[in-house]
Amino acid sequence: MTSIIRFKENPIVTPQSIQPSREDMIVEGVLNPGAFIFQDKTYLLLRVAERPKQEDGIVSFPVMGDENTIDILKFNKDDPQLDLSDPRIVKKANTFYLTTMSHLRLMESADGIHFTTPSTLPSIIYPTKAAEKYGMEDCRVTVIDDVYYLTYTQVSAGGVCVGMMSTSDWIHFEHLGTILPPHNKDCALFPQKVGGKYFCLHRPSGVDLGGNYVWISESNDLVHWGKHNCLAMTRKDHWDSNRIGAGASPIWTKDGWLVIYHGANHTNRYCLGAILLDLQDPKQILARSEDPIMEPDELYEQNGFFGEVVFTNGHVQFGDQLWMYYGASDSVVCGAHLSIKSILKSLE
Amino acid sequence: MTSIIRFKENPIVTPQSIQPSREDMIVEGVLNPGAFIFQDKTYLLLRVAERPKQEDGIVSFPVMGDENTIDILKFNKDDPQLDLSDPRIVKKANTFYLTTMSHLRLMESADGIHFTTPSTLPSIIYPTKAAEKYGMEDCRVTVIDDVYYLTYTQVSAGGVCVGMMSTSDWIHFEHLGTILPPHNKDCALFPQKVGGKYFCLHRPSGVDLGGNYVWISESNDLVHWGKHNCLAMTRKDHWDSNRIGAGASPIWTKDGWLVIYHGANHTNRYCLGAILLDLQDPKQILARSEDPIMEPDELYEQNGFFGEVVFTNGHVQFGDQLWMYYGASDSVVCGAHLSIKSILKSLE
Repeated sequence: MTSIIRFKENPIVTPQSIQPSREDMIVEGVLNPGAFIFQDKTYLLLRVAERPKQEDGIVSFPVMGDENTIDILKFNKDDPQLDLSDPRIVKKANTFYLTTMSHLRLMESADGIHFTTPSTLPSIIYPTKAAEKYGMEDCRVTVIDDVYYLTYTQVSAGGVCVGMMSTSDWIHFEHLGTILPPHNKDCALFPQKVGGKYFCLHRPSGVDLGGNYVWISESNDLVHWGKHNCLAMTRKDHWDSNRIGAGASPIWTKDGWLVIYHGANHTNRYCLGAILLDLQDPKQILARSEDPIMEPDELYEQNGFFGEVVFTNGHVQFGDQLWMYYGASDSVVCGAHLSIKSILKSLE
Repeated sequence: MTSIIRFKENPIVTPQSIQPSREDMIVEGVLNPGAFIFQDKTYLLLRVAERPKQEDGIVSFPVMGDENTIDILKFNKDDPQLDLSDPRIVKKANTFYLTTMSHLRLMESADGIHFTTPSTLPSIIYPTKAAEKYGMEDCRVTVIDDVYYLTYTQVSAGGVCVGMMSTSDWIHFEHLGTILPPHNKDCALFPQKVGGKYFCLHRPSGVDLGGNYVWISESNDLVHWGKHNCLAMTRKDHWDSNRIGAGASPIWTKDGWLVIYHGANHTNRYCLGAILLDLQDPKQILARSEDPIMEPDELYEQNGFFGEVVFTNGHVQFGDQLWMYYGASDSVVCGAHLSIKSILKSLE
């Protein structure tokens, strides 16, 4: 078993520590942060999931309106066409909505543990595109040649896809559009070119045929992607039998590209594992965790908006030490220390 | 109503006119051809769906093996885990297979009506890639700068996606990989750059959120794609309420890019309609058919392997005249004459 040392301060960010973006909203969850170093501080780019204050007998939820305003939709809970069995989804007849709308929120820290609203940078990245009318989620942040690339989940009635932005100063952002069409999420860029090409991992979903697998793709410019190949599938009767997806940017090691990924089984219990990819040809898998390297063992990982979840899409590296940030139970943000050597050893 | 003149010779290609690729297989359907002109002849690149000769009480179907051989899988029909309710799909527990395996087959004609096996060109394009282990389907052929680009559906256990090949002589082919990841099909390239970019239409599918909609994307090299945007959605209570997808390459007209598309309702009745896109900015829809321009009215369009289907992904143009080729009932190939002006008039 890999040694994971959870921060004793966990959870380090909770809904209570986050100001809602509007007075009529409450923060339902703060989760799944991207993580990066900027000007010697550690930053988290959190996903903040909000919903309106709920009234008795009514489910209400936000969507972005046509003028980038927020519209609140409401359904009576006794509507026989309504299905609220998944706390994340409002299903009415054949139409799906999300119970919450997520945006991205920046927090900074001098010690990597205590995070506060940035003093000099804008802290809220709000949906502005048609593809984001139901929200922005689970942003990876990858530094390539001193530019920060944000790859995040865009949600709208059109589907779930991967959007990209870039910034150098965290004040000015360039929108680079939707880089992967539906149904896709969990896009992690490699931090450098390999063999003259950019690479990314992502998680398209099949309909009938296919599943929730990790794919790998190539690009010349990070904006246009091709040469898509299925890299890793779910494994029957394993902890990752139902869905898998890459975490943050793959980590260069002399043994190969180390990928931390999440896997869920058919009860939607989310654990973390590792995959090692060939340094020269990252389409080749060298090793994969037989058992999880991290499971939802703590109370804050087992109980919450959507329990039994550890999910990471952000880490910062200091030599062999990985400071991994993760969402627990789709409710709070936590941190843990991992030794890269120890993960590699678990893959031998 | 647009005037559609079906070939009086319909159906022009049937399973009986196609030699199976192997002795132990039968041709179940010949359908959904790409169409193009090469050296003054009309060519169809058909989808040929084959399955093994069926034994009593057993369903058997082909998949490509690891050495590019064909493996025949068999299940007892009385297996309680087996679901054969859709004639196109074998579902066992949570695993999906196809009842048939498709490859692409070339046929040539001097008059555009009577098609035979080419005398001097290889006629069979067989799956060779991991992404094609369950088959290749519904190929569009687009000529750009004298190169023929084949965009087709790749089917495997990894999912359903879009593959691309190119050729100049129909003897030598270059494989350009998977250009759009799962779940995606119905990819039609524009025949020329617009504003310095290549464009394509395609049909990703949503899971829960999103649907079966037509998207439009941009590329610099036809191999890597980005700037994905949802172009057209299904329409509630319309003939195209359940799924839509582009047909063959959009047609340049002085009024705009004319797209012929298929739409199916919730009983899976497939009709054809038209969409007009702005010439300079094809992300803008100028008009869309309220009613179908073609419905499955003939007996051969209503009865077959999968009835009530007209589906096109191939046409050749002679001035105002479109010779449109289409699959009927997932069984046979037919043709029809359409006037482009008449379609445009129906969109006014």
